[in-house]
Amino acid sequence: MYAERLARTRAAMADAGVDVLLASVGPDLPYLIGYEAMPLPRLTMLVLHRDGPATLVIPRLEVARVVERDDLFAIHGWDETDDPIGLVADLCGRPGTVAVGDQTWARHVVDLLDRMPATRWRRADGITGPLRARKDAFEIDQLRAAGAAADRVAAQLQAGEVRFVGRTEAEVSEEIARRLLAEGHAHVNFSIVAAGANAASPHHHASDRVIAAGEVVLCDFGGVFATPDGTPGYCSDMTRMFWVGGEPPTEFVELYDVLHRAQSAAVAAAVVGTPCQDVDRAARSIIDAAGFGAAFIHRTGHGIGLFEHEDPYIVAGNDAPLVAGNAFSIEPGIYLEGRWGARLEDIVVATPQGPEPMNRADHRLTVLDA
Amino acid sequence: MYAERLARTRAAMADAGVDVLLASVGPDLPYLIGYEAMPLPRLTMLVLHRDGPATLVIPRLEVARVVERDDLFAIHGWDETDDPIGLVADLCGRPGTVAVGDQTWARHVVDLLDRMPATRWRRADGITGPLRARKDAFEIDQLRAAGAAADRVAAQLQAGEVRFVGRTEAEVSEEIARRLLAEGHAHVNFSIVAAGANAASPHHHASDRVIAAGEVVLCDFGGVFATPDGTPGYCSDMTRMFWVGGEPPTEFVELYDVLHRAQSAAVAAAVVGTPCQDVDRAARSIIDAAGFGAAFIHRTGHGIGLFEHEDPYIVAGNDAPLVAGNAFSIEPGIYLEGRWGARLEDIVVATPQGPEPMNRADHRLTVLDA
Repeated sequence: MYAERLARTRAAMADAGVDVLLASVGPDLPYLIGYEAMPLPRLTMLVLHRDGPATLVIPRLEVARVVERDDLFAIHGWDETDDPIGLVADLCGRPGTVAVGDQTWARHVVDLLDRMPATRWRRADGITGPLRARKDAFEIDQLRAAGAAADRVAAQLQAGEVRFVGRTEAEVSEEIARRLLAEGHAHVNFSIVAAGANAASPHHHASDRVIAAGEVVLCDFGGVFATPDGTPGYCSDMTRMFWVGGEPPTEFVELYDVLHRAQSAAVAAAVVGTPCQDVDRAARSIIDAAGFGAAFIHRTGHGIGLFEHEDPYIVAGNDAPLVAGNAFSIEPGIYLEGRWGARLEDIVVATPQGPEPMNRADHRLTVLDA
Repeated sequence: MYAERLARTRAAMADAGVDVLLASVGPDLPYLIGYEAMPLPRLTMLVLHRDGPATLVIPRLEVARVVERDDLFAIHGWDETDDPIGLVADLCGRPGTVAVGDQTWARHVVDLLDRMPATRWRRADGITGPLRARKDAFEIDQLRAAGAAADRVAAQLQAGEVRFVGRTEAEVSEEIARRLLAEGHAHVNFSIVAAGANAASPHHHASDRVIAAGEVVLCDFGGVFATPDGTPGYCSDMTRMFWVGGEPPTEFVELYDVLHRAQSAAVAAAVVGTPCQDVDRAARSIIDAAGFGAAFIHRTGHGIGLFEHEDPYIVAGNDAPLVAGNAFSIEPGIYLEGRWGARLEDIVVATPQGPEPMNRADHRLTVLDA
């Protein structure tokens, strides 16, 4: 698997005129060799030559964490008093163009700029993004398992197993996180619980605000699902909506109905060959037509895989067509500041047989007793 | 507090000849304005002019997360179809030298290189590192609270409240993580549990290996302690050693005794004015003299604060003297590959009255029944 990915990456480097690709923290490294760099100042970096060897530069004390693959890459452990940047620069040689992984820390990039003044720098996501965005059967299985685990937590919430009213958003958030772990996630990326007017802030997290009866509650949660062999896992991400205590006002029911129709339409539009922006438009046009256009203040979705936000982005201006194996969120939202908001989200994979949702938990607004 | 920090940063920029400082993900932004950027591709970046304004460029849908301080910085929210890199480049103007925060994603740095070809790039940690490394009274209080919470978990482990034998490293790791949260941490950064020969790998995490009677177990854990007002919190990080089931062999007791003496000596050496490398040497010379020098394969410590690894580094070659307010780990280790290993770690603050340990849990090897 990794041999094939490295070969495809080298071919893409040739197409793009890139001589060396540098992968550090972030999803490129686990995608290419199955190892995830520790997010710490000590440099871990794969130096991948288009027409030459691959070498993993890594702190000596982390070498034991790597599953060695002598056929694919060499390992160069560095000691505490070594100069890892000099080492990377030496391994690079004198390349014309170097592509550097998206999340690589600026400290390393700036240090390399100094050592390699004649080099032209590019973003590696132009190379690895499209490759990583086309999930293979193994990866889709992993996303399916992650989605099913998140669905089980959603179903528990919908069945009323988690009390909302009288608890803080933060308490409910922690309980959702615990349940994600219990359902097989290796760790939780986020667990947003936004009640009442907080639901109008798309990236509100969870506060000490106590949830009251007669309120809307937005739950948006996800994490990294554990793989059987401990290799880096794939992400879940889903949103479901709740009305707690009493019946929801007609106005909110109508708003949610618009959102539900918009989300379903975008999922249905996520067909191989359709430009990403048309999937965004499928949701947006329904929300626009209902008069909520100005309240849908973000794109419809983002790709997902080893990382929670990656290619392809489902956004106006992205005319790239969906290809089989693309995995992404479909998550339109309607936000009325100071009042309430709603979002509905599934992960969807574009397959030759049509869009396959990774999330199947009930899409309706769940009404719960206080 | 933030006004003072911004003023000190601007003064340091003047000393270093830096015109603009860019802070994004990582600890610089919370240090400067109390806001932590989401670690996602959408750009959040503070553009701080030495002799001009500060502007926070942030996705519009995250603006509501920021506590506004009109007197300190302007907020510029960008929409999904805007070009945030162009916006940052415009706000920068035509600076000669720009310093960019350590953990800023390479994608943004590479994009800025293209837009600002005449600019000289520097690492911001040359500016913010020494400032952040000198903790004020509030920060030391936070570190003290974080250390006391980690100490409570260590004491629970030492009292035998957590079963080791018959459970996997991963199960014990999860239990330690739960206890860190229960003791007031907002989240857990790591919870290393390494049994037997796994203790010889300094950055081993926790595996499905079942812990057996008659083994050494290394527990190294830490996280971010929750602050009362929800502003970004400070880190804990400590290591304690256990022998489970039966009495430890003399050979290990002797090894641990060397380690214990080395760690105590380094803590005692952490006096204001002492070069960092001399603190490292205080531990290393004892371990060397006992014949374990080749088995102490990492530096003695790292600074800690809003981030788990920052200035000052307690390492050979760092001749910078400790200043009052420096906070750092003292964590020598002895690792015998294939056999066993040990590490002992406290966080220590250098104060005018001498080294103040943030961790006071029993430093002896804890022997537990199976």
